[in-house]
Amino acid sequence: MNKIVRIMLKPKEDREISQGFPWVYDNEISTVKFPLEEGMKTSSLEECAVEDGTIVEVYSNAGGFLGSGVINKKSKITVRMISSLHADKILENMKSFWAKKIRDAVNIRNLSFKSDDSCRLVFGEADFIPGLIVEKYVSKGKLYLVVQFLALACEKFRNEILSSLKDFVKPDFIYERSDAAVREKEGLAEKAGWIGKTGQEVIEIEENGVLLLVDIAHGQKTGYFLDQKFNREKIKKFCHGKKVLDTFTHTGAFGLNAVKAGAREVVSVDISQEAVDMVEKNISLNGAEEKMKAVCADVFDLLKQYEASGEKFDVIILDPPAFTKKAGKIEKAYGGYKEINLRAMRILNEGGILVSCSCSHYFDENTFYSMLMHSAMDSHKRVQVLEKLGAAPDHPILLGYSKSEYLKCAVCRVI
Amino acid sequence: MNKIVRIMLKPKEDREISQGFPWVYDNEISTVKFPLEEGMKTSSLEECAVEDGTIVEVYSNAGGFLGSGVINKKSKITVRMISSLHADKILENMKSFWAKKIRDAVNIRNLSFKSDDSCRLVFGEADFIPGLIVEKYVSKGKLYLVVQFLALACEKFRNEILSSLKDFVKPDFIYERSDAAVREKEGLAEKAGWIGKTGQEVIEIEENGVLLLVDIAHGQKTGYFLDQKFNREKIKKFCHGKKVLDTFTHTGAFGLNAVKAGAREVVSVDISQEAVDMVEKNISLNGAEEKMKAVCADVFDLLKQYEASGEKFDVIILDPPAFTKKAGKIEKAYGGYKEINLRAMRILNEGGILVSCSCSHYFDENTFYSMLMHSAMDSHKRVQVLEKLGAAPDHPILLGYSKSEYLKCAVCRVI
Repeated sequence: MNKIVRIMLKPKEDREISQGFPWVYDNEISTVKFPLEEGMKTSSLEECAVEDGTIVEVYSNAGGFLGSGVINKKSKITVRMISSLHADKILENMKSFWAKKIRDAVNIRNLSFKSDDSCRLVFGEADFIPGLIVEKYVSKGKLYLVVQFLALACEKFRNEILSSLKDFVKPDFIYERSDAAVREKEGLAEKAGWIGKTGQEVIEIEENGVLLLVDIAHGQKTGYFLDQKFNREKIKKFCHGKKVLDTFTHTGAFGLNAVKAGAREVVSVDISQEAVDMVEKNISLNGAEEKMKAVCADVFDLLKQYEASGEKFDVIILDPPAFTKKAGKIEKAYGGYKEINLRAMRILNEGGILVSCSCSHYFDENTFYSMLMHSAMDSHKRVQVLEKLGAAPDHPILLGYSKSEYLKCAVCRVI
Repeated sequence: MNKIVRIMLKPKEDREISQGFPWVYDNEISTVKFPLEEGMKTSSLEECAVEDGTIVEVYSNAGGFLGSGVINKKSKITVRMISSLHADKILENMKSFWAKKIRDAVNIRNLSFKSDDSCRLVFGEADFIPGLIVEKYVSKGKLYLVVQFLALACEKFRNEILSSLKDFVKPDFIYERSDAAVREKEGLAEKAGWIGKTGQEVIEIEENGVLLLVDIAHGQKTGYFLDQKFNREKIKKFCHGKKVLDTFTHTGAFGLNAVKAGAREVVSVDISQEAVDMVEKNISLNGAEEKMKAVCADVFDLLKQYEASGEKFDVIILDPPAFTKKAGKIEKAYGGYKEINLRAMRILNEGGILVSCSCSHYFDENTFYSMLMHSAMDSHKRVQVLEKLGAAPDHPILLGYSKSEYLKCAVCRVI
């Protein structure tokens, strides 16, 4: 007898799963078929006795096999899909099942990144390991991994995952940053700290020839936003000899890339004094004191001030945090994005370059470019988009799972 | 008295123009205000005596100034916008007006291209010179320009434009390829041939280290598709040691880039024997005979044959011609794109790379990625999009003019 629990979906709820969507919500489940000694028992999700963290199989209402996933009845995302294989195939050799996922994820990065590059090694669902984030940072020849287990689907298999990472990536240190609020929705407590050997909490990475301090223990998320690496490199060609404004800078990374490219003058702005302190350290780490300064200010206010005083720039980078993390708040976010973009367009010299970003998944590409068009209209400018960029290839997009696509970065010439 | 003809739009027809759309259609025009000795005369478009090729001013129905353009009553696109300046400012110094446009366009390319790179120097409306295409090809140290005057708006100013190009770009040869059917809609006859000195019709360019023959006199459009230059470079990292299928190849450029990157075996396919002959010449030009072969075949049939015979590839490039050039034909095009994509997914080895392109403006990005998702679903595959690419930055996108955006190139890992 097949011992595997079967999750039967309601009619039509198989559609998105077939298209690649990796989550089954609680309200999409019709019944659970549970194997007992005396035969299959059918019950509701609430009544079924399956243990959270079990690998289950998911079926359409008509009985078509859709794949296998990990169940968590504490979460509204009740099943996270992990494979198109049948569960018995997975259970045959759990170690090699997870090892293959890690190996595949790392091998993809090896095509686009050098061995001493810092990059994201695992991007959760988009790498078929739900809820797992693994960042690789290289600091003075030492390899640090920062890991986040953000769902039970990966937490349950943390031993297999960590052992595969150790075997295949051979890190010197591993730091866990599972201190994200999202764990609560999975019924998991937050946790953080070294796994095994203790390393340094503030490390020094190199990106595009720029040195950057990263606080892996206390920085935002895993300490640094690796997804803009190639976009920071791309803007260099516009910066030689130019006056550059780098807003929402966080670590000063865009600004320092501009200095590296020969910018005449760079102002990097962040609203957080803590961030500005870090930017100042990064400025001196790169010997950029003469070219670059860090300013603690609200970007909305600062842009207004520049407009009032008539100060102009040749290149402006807008890399704000997500103005919306919810589908329902797009209108408000639209206003925020539009305000900073149209103000930036006004204080650019003729033919200047606006590098405009949005990292909000819900503010999708069409909405983003429409916002840019309306910002141009209202500031009486014309805009040529020279490059439409997104996240680096260590943040792949899983077709059918639109949440894996979030970063827009438009390189605009403004006339 | 202001001598400038004013085009008054119907109510609400100013909206798209304000957003950056550069065309005024005949049916959007309310009246024409024509200056005479005795004062302004208002007439309909049909009755107005303004000469085609005149620089006119465009106004909203409420009288708001929208910009200046060139009128052509023979075309449904009656005014092509050329500037947000008033017409008298333009007429003051026509030579410098056009020279600035050319200089700006060329300067943008200088940021992304080396002096001996071949690239597009002017991309029509997206560079604010309606209807003008200028390609720069560098062949054995000689600089060739291939120019297309596709609208009266640029044809009328061909002397100013050619003189600016000569001054600023200093070409050795200029070949005109104004032999496109679209000229007829502008009331212009087709023409082609050398402007000034006669050069070679078949030239040899280098792209990403690959040598390519380009027939500037008889090849499609201007002889070569420069817009995929960086995408061809991007795929190299996936090709080392791999078996590659390069379809709709035209000149063999993707395939030769794969060979350059160390591909084990490359098959380049085109339905045209003429194209295949050219690919074969390019293969021998690059000494790639041992690694690469050119095949004359219908790609739809060939993919079916590979599927039937079980032959597999590690990397497949699908770079078809536009399956639709009309908004109304999207459904049929969708079927065509989906068929080749799902067949390609089926004959890829596990974890193989599909480089899927569409150059049809009407088959927009959302439709394209939806087609890929459905191809994956129907072939029971999962797809990670590693890179979402578009045209190179010598083909800028003008915000508000969606036609300037046309090329999609998805680098997909198929599992």
